Amino acid sequence: MERPRHQGMAKNTYMRWRLPLVCLLWEVAMIVLFGVFVRFGPEADAHWEEEKRQMNLTSDIENDFYFRYPSFQDVHVMIFVGFGFLMTFLKRYGFGAVGFNFLLAAFGIQWALLMQGWFHSFKSGKILIGVENLINADFCVGSVCIAFGAILGKTSPIQLLVMTLFQVTLFAVNEYILLNLLHVKDAGGSMTIHTFGAYFGLTVTRILYRPNLEQSKDKQGSVYHSDLFAMIGTLYLWMYWPSFNSAISDHGDAQHRAAINTYCSLAACVLTTMAFSSMLQKKGKLDMVHIQNATLAGGVAVGTSAEMMLTPYGSLIVGFICGIVSTVGYVYLTPFLESRLHIQDTCGIHNLHAMPGLIGGIVGAITAAAATEDVYGKEGFIKAFDFTGTYQARTPSVQGGFQAAGIVVSLLIAFAGGALVGAILKLPVWGDAAAENCFEDDIYWEVPEDEESDVYHMHNPDKPASP
Amino acid sequence: MERPRHQGMAKNTYMRWRLPLVCLLWEVAMIVLFGVFVRFGPEADAHWEEEKRQMNLTSDIENDFYFRYPSFQDVHVMIFVGFGFLMTFLKRYGFGAVGFNFLLAAFGIQWALLMQGWFHSFKSGKILIGVENLINADFCVGSVCIAFGAILGKTSPIQLLVMTLFQVTLFAVNEYILLNLLHVKDAGGSMTIHTFGAYFGLTVTRILYRPNLEQSKDKQGSVYHSDLFAMIGTLYLWMYWPSFNSAISDHGDAQHRAAINTYCSLAACVLTTMAFSSMLQKKGKLDMVHIQNATLAGGVAVGTSAEMMLTPYGSLIVGFICGIVSTVGYVYLTPFLESRLHIQDTCGIHNLHAMPGLIGGIVGAITAAAATEDVYGKEGFIKAFDFTGTYQARTPSVQGGFQAAGIVVSLLIAFAGGALVGAILKLPVWGDAAAENCFEDDIYWEVPEDEESDVYHMHNPDKPASP
Amino acid sequence: MERPRHQGMAKNTYMRWRLPLVCLLWEVAMIVLFGVFVRFGPEADAHWEEEKRQMNLTSDIENDFYFRYPSFQDVHVMIFVGFGFLMTFLKRYGFGAVGFNFLLAAFGIQWALLMQGWFHSFKSGKILIGVENLINADFCVGSVCIAFGAILGKTSPIQLLVMTLFQVTLFAVNEYILLNLLHVKDAGGSMTIHTFGAYFGLTVTRILYRPNLEQSKDKQGSVYHSDLFAMIGTLYLWMYWPSFNSAISDHGDAQHRAAINTYCSLAACVLTTMAFSSMLQKKGKLDMVHIQNATLAGGVAVGTSAEMMLTPYGSLIVGFICGIVSTVGYVYLTPFLESRLHIQDTCGIHNLHAMPGLIGGIVGAITAAAATEDVYGKEGFIKAFDFTGTYQARTPSVQGGFQAAGIVVSLLIAFAGGALVGAILKLPVWGDAAAENCFEDDIYWEVPEDEESDVYHMHNPDKPASP
Repeated sequence: MERPRHQGMAKNTYMRWRLPLVCLLWEVAMIVLFGVFVRFGPEADAHWEEEKRQMNLTSDIENDFYFRYPSFQDVHVMIFVGFGFLMTFLKRYGFGAVGFNFLLAAFGIQWALLMQGWFHSFKSGKILIGVENLINADFCVGSVCIAFGAILGKTSPIQLLVMTLFQVTLFAVNEYILLNLLHVKDAGGSMTIHTFGAYFGLTVTRILYRPNLEQSKDKQGSVYHSDLFAMIGTLYLWMYWPSFNSAISDHGDAQHRAAINTYCSLAACVLTTMAFSSMLQKKGKLDMVHIQNATLAGGVAVGTSAEMMLTPYGSLIVGFICGIVSTVGYVYLTPFLESRLHIQDTCGIHNLHAMPGLIGGIVGAITAAAATEDVYGKEGFIKAFDFTGTYQARTPSVQGGFQAAGIVVSLLIAFAGGALVGAILKLPVWGDAAAENCFEDDIYWEVPEDEESDVYHMHNPDKPASP
Repeated sequence: MERPRHQGMAKNTYMRWRLPLVCLLWEVAMIVLFGVFVRFGPEADAHWEEEKRQMNLTSDIENDFYFRYPSFQDVHVMIFVGFGFLMTFLKRYGFGAVGFNFLLAAFGIQWALLMQGWFHSFKSGKILIGVENLINADFCVGSVCIAFGAILGKTSPIQLLVMTLFQVTLFAVNEYILLNLLHVKDAGGSMTIHTFGAYFGLTVTRILYRPNLEQSKDKQGSVYHSDLFAMIGTLYLWMYWPSFNSAISDHGDAQHRAAINTYCSLAACVLTTMAFSSMLQKKGKLDMVHIQNATLAGGVAVGTSAEMMLTPYGSLIVGFICGIVSTVGYVYLTPFLESRLHIQDTCGIHNLHAMPGLIGGIVGAITAAAATEDVYGKEGFIKAFDFTGTYQARTPSVQGGFQAAGIVVSLLIAFAGGALVGAILKLPVWGDAAAENCFEDDIYWEVPEDEESDVYHMHNPDKPASP
Repeated sequence: MERPRHQGMAKNTYMRWRLPLVCLLWEVAMIVLFGVFVRFGPEADAHWEEEKRQMNLTSDIENDFYFRYPSFQDVHVMIFVGFGFLMTFLKRYGFGAVGFNFLLAAFGIQWALLMQGWFHSFKSGKILIGVENLINADFCVGSVCIAFGAILGKTSPIQLLVMTLFQVTLFAVNEYILLNLLHVKDAGGSMTIHTFGAYFGLTVTRILYRPNLEQSKDKQGSVYHSDLFAMIGTLYLWMYWPSFNSAISDHGDAQHRAAINTYCSLAACVLTTMAFSSMLQKKGKLDMVHIQNATLAGGVAVGTSAEMMLTPYGSLIVGFICGIVSTVGYVYLTPFLESRLHIQDTCGIHNLHAMPGLIGGIVGAITAAAATEDVYGKEGFIKAFDFTGTYQARTPSVQGGFQAAGIVVSLLIAFAGGALVGAILKLPVWGDAAAENCFEDDIYWEVPEDEESDVYHMHNPDKPASP
């Protein structure tokens, strides 16, 4: 099974003690903190029978589980299969893409349950969790998966676990500022998940800039079947995005509306992506990179406004624009960012999450500012923006201003947090690979000695054909 | 990245201006029409709070969203992953299969929302949409995906977009005639989706007959891993078919029953498919083509009757028969259709959709004609067949007659429409490939220069081993 | 298409008459038995309108369909895609893995509907089925899929059908003893599904011991893309396991709680699996076999206790332990079982299902024994353990004792049943392959003559490079 490989000459990528140590330490900490803090929320607790009577609920179907569990499962698939497989497009980094995504997300959801729990579900010293907390934890980890896209293939699993720890923490802080202090609406997370996650990841990859990355250029491409694996990820993200944007909206019409808006935006986005993918290519051929990514930008960009009265028509326009912006970004902006700004963005998250996320924040601010009692109905208006209690007197235009402020806050925390975390990850103790070994599973994984890799060697004259 | 290829000598497959033009034109038209016509239905509108009171609903869970959204998502997966991956079985047409399916379905659902909306959800000048409309749009596009199966690998993306435009239109007309004028039941679409879609596609492929298609015979097969990708499509279609057939049935027992009937029919179908796949092969080995397709025929064939009192036992019989019919079709009928009738049916939709669709229509007619108040209960009988208003006096046997008429109408519209659309697609302006370049992604896609394709060249002595 | 192959010299693997015969016989039997016994349950019957009034239900949403259908579909995906693709890791047995799993599961669910129906849903001579029966049938078949993992690649499809017939029967008997006679709780099936299924399969593979299996050692490994296909199976099992463990729990808080507990246990399990996979390997690299399997052990091990008040904290601990136990099992125990006890366990089900299943049974017994009215609430306590009627006086510690007895019964029936079925499968009439042809699709499937297999031949000097 062993094959000699000139492996990270300058770098020590040996994980045997470091990775287990971090994993076990992290997990023991989770157990202790869960033991101290986390309990079942009232709808998941065996006292529910009594609770139900107190809440005047006549049927078990009123349990929040039945309102949100199907959406939760769709979101869960997006995080683990969607993001995981979307990143398998690299020819020899499929194990790392799907495996490290699995690792960081599994850790991240635990830490997110705690961080978000302290901010939002903390009652008499305990965090009370239910299905909505699970969704929010998945959402939070979504922002880490996005950032992972920028550094894909260039970091060790330990770096990813460290980044997850910090990013989840910062996510929860940013989310608290937006949702609780600014009283901003962002059900699908254009700001909290996409803008924050993407600019955080881009800052980290900027700090971790590798000047000699062209040494592994041959491994940065795809092969035929790896592109098909990636399409599994794309399609699951695309199909389930309506669930993503509607998962934590208010019961009833808001969830319903969010799903419809997202469905429309995504449909339009596919057509403009195809159009521009063909148009921007001299030979007029479609590029799988665009189809795999830019088709999703429409979902990102209605993340804030999907539960508002954006209208199907408005959603189509947003999707239309984002397909174009995202595809143009892949063709022109990504090379520019790499050569001029030294931002090496493996998956092009700037095009799929950063710009559409910003657009989503802006669309949300405009839609909120344009809201009227006429369009929403008297009760609907109050319910949609939660203009109750302290916020009773807030007007739509003021709400629009706060929404815009939410974008700025997300950007600031992303840049500052990304810089800090990037600096930590730059420490030479985490076992990342040398530039020549990037995008190569062989460093961290037992890779089967298979026909394919034999073929691979045949066409790499610098490596012996038979090991 | 470039590799010289003797590409479509006689044919101009250059898409750079044509494809973007069609995509953008189509999408701008959608935006304008949605702007004029499409609004949220009452259960997705922010006025729902007031609406709810008017409709005497005590809980948000009564919103149609919670009755249908899980089924909608399953149907959505069937259309995009199910059909998309089912067609990736070809060794070098995976990008086209999953990518063009994505494109046509994303356009088709928008146009279907409009077409079906005008016929079924038009109130005071507006189309009011909710989750049921999304499901119906997916259904409508399902019929286009079916037709795509017949012409897979032989058409340009522009042809597919043109076909989608026309087929969705004709689908909506046919559906209106069946459901509204004939008052026919067809919840799972044996007639409206499968019979119509398959005969439409077969007519189109007949008109587009390519006499020299054997020039690309070597590319019409599968490779080991492409067969596994196709099984992803098969299994998602198979697993979610109970959701497909129950998605738009009446709330309560009808949805419940439709799911059970479909589950039973599909299970039986797998066993007879396996039996006949082995039996019809001299060496007794199983053929992946049969497993990938004929196992699904049972779902097609209970599309009309699943919500009726077909009974689990009746469903098993239908599935039993259809597994046999479909497998026998693949072995004997497909070659016959190609050599004698010049019907080149890439995916064998005649075996998977056309014949089982017809059987489904007939089973539906018989089940309806055999209905009694004893079996359905007095109220259940009226509810199941909607024997109210104008149709109060309709008897089961009359209903059976109308069901049968529905089959005939679907066939007629499919043949006439397919002939018309086939003639349009035959115009030499749409950029389809020459016969020798069929079933080859390279024509319309940037294909990665990978190990696999090098290997591919090695074994094709007429092409240079190193490009 | 034909390629000469020295095929099973001593063994006759010709399926042409035997496989069709068994499939058709089995299916005709199902039709007859369904015709005699199976009818729609009240919530799927057209009489539901009247039934509803009698049961005082005010809304269609109270139909059990809406409580359980989303979970059912998730479970359905686990059985067909989850188990099917998990087993595609072998380089040349992907068709067999996913195809035979499809076959045995499709037959098994029908037989399970009957067997479980006779024991649990039999009223006035009829088995009345609804969505819960579909879930239970899928569960039952899950135990067969588990056993299939032990004998993967070494048996003919006929053997699998025979095994399914017997195993489903024994499953139903064991389940009846546990749930009805011992009044044991086991909603996620740690005992009935995993412990029973795994020890049954291990006993069968012990009896079918093949001394010369090293002749096909080169085919027992994976290739790069087959490992990615397997990860599809892994992730769907992992993501949907919360649905599995909550699918048949009581409505309301029990389903909600079971999902949360499972989510937590699985998350913890990923971290300890990664830790030990790296730690137990001299080079510190991660092993795909562990990631594909041991990450799921946490779901198995909360199968009994998930609906109890295990708490998120308790779930993390269970997951923590099982990731370790399972990974250590793969590294040390599997080789030991093979060399010393002659148990050839292809997928390592001893590590993924047997040991975690036992742990799950024990955790369930302890959690039940530790239950108090304080933790569950007075009503919740009675509801959770169904301490009504005959069992009104049962105490938690007595319940714990019965739970433990359930483990022992499951083991005994698994061993005895496995020995019996193993002996039957050893008869030389079922067409299994010779040792040198194990793990090779070519025996039972038409395998495409593709580039990959040419490459494959190139590196197998004993086979001609061009056929």
